[in-house]
Amino acid sequence: MAVLHFCDIPEETSLKGATGVSKRTLIGKDQSAPNFYLRRFRVEPLGNTPRHAHQWEHEIYVLSGSGEVMVAGETSQLNEGTAAFIPGGADHQIRAGDTPLEFICIIPAIEEA
Amino acid sequence: MAVLHFCDIPEETSLKGATGVSKRTLIGKDQSAPNFYLRRFRVEPLGNTPRHAHQWEHEIYVLSGSGEVMVAGETSQLNEGTAAFIPGGADHQIRAGDTPLEFICIIPAIEEA
Repeated sequence: MAVLHFCDIPEETSLKGATGVSKRTLIGKDQSAPNFYLRRFRVEPLGNTPRHAHQWEHEIYVLSGSGEVMVAGETSQLNEGTAAFIPGGADHQIRAGDTPLEFICIIPAIEEA
Repeated sequence: MAVLHFCDIPEETSLKGATGVSKRTLIGKDQSAPNFYLRRFRVEPLGNTPRHAHQWEHEIYVLSGSGEVMVAGETSQLNEGTAAFIPGGADHQIRAGDTPLEFICIIPAIEEA
């Protein structure tokens, strides 16, 4: 078993193509997670994740704040309690609104590009 | 893409072996999720999930409230912002404290027992 608090995990802030984004990997290789990794992101007001596409999917749950997610040219609102499934292969980007956007993002257990 | 709010997903409340537990599957078969499913649980004060073991792992993130998780006889505190990795095969149970405990729980894309 591994039990930890997100505040005890170092933030990564140099994320290629991102503006105002920090990431903490809460459950991943270090916990020998076999199938999927759990990460927590914070996007500063008006910041955004990279606009990109890759073969693996994202599953997202919004913890706080608001913003929007763009997937394959279609944009949807994100608020606390919103879940989003972003399929593999789709062009996508997450953008914060006027307040910080915090969310959980799960990916398959792969080497991250 | 699928974007939804947890409040729009029906609650399941008849969970075998559980007391005061409701579950919403936010991303699962209905979204054609290929690798893992995202569920949101609420445990009423002093309620608990089943004490059981199964071959698949859980990855958990606590949204609100407090309680504890028991894994293979070892008990750890849960608070808002705690993440827990429960390995496959381990006897485990989640218990709420004096307030409702709400958490995200991700499992591999399998038929749930």
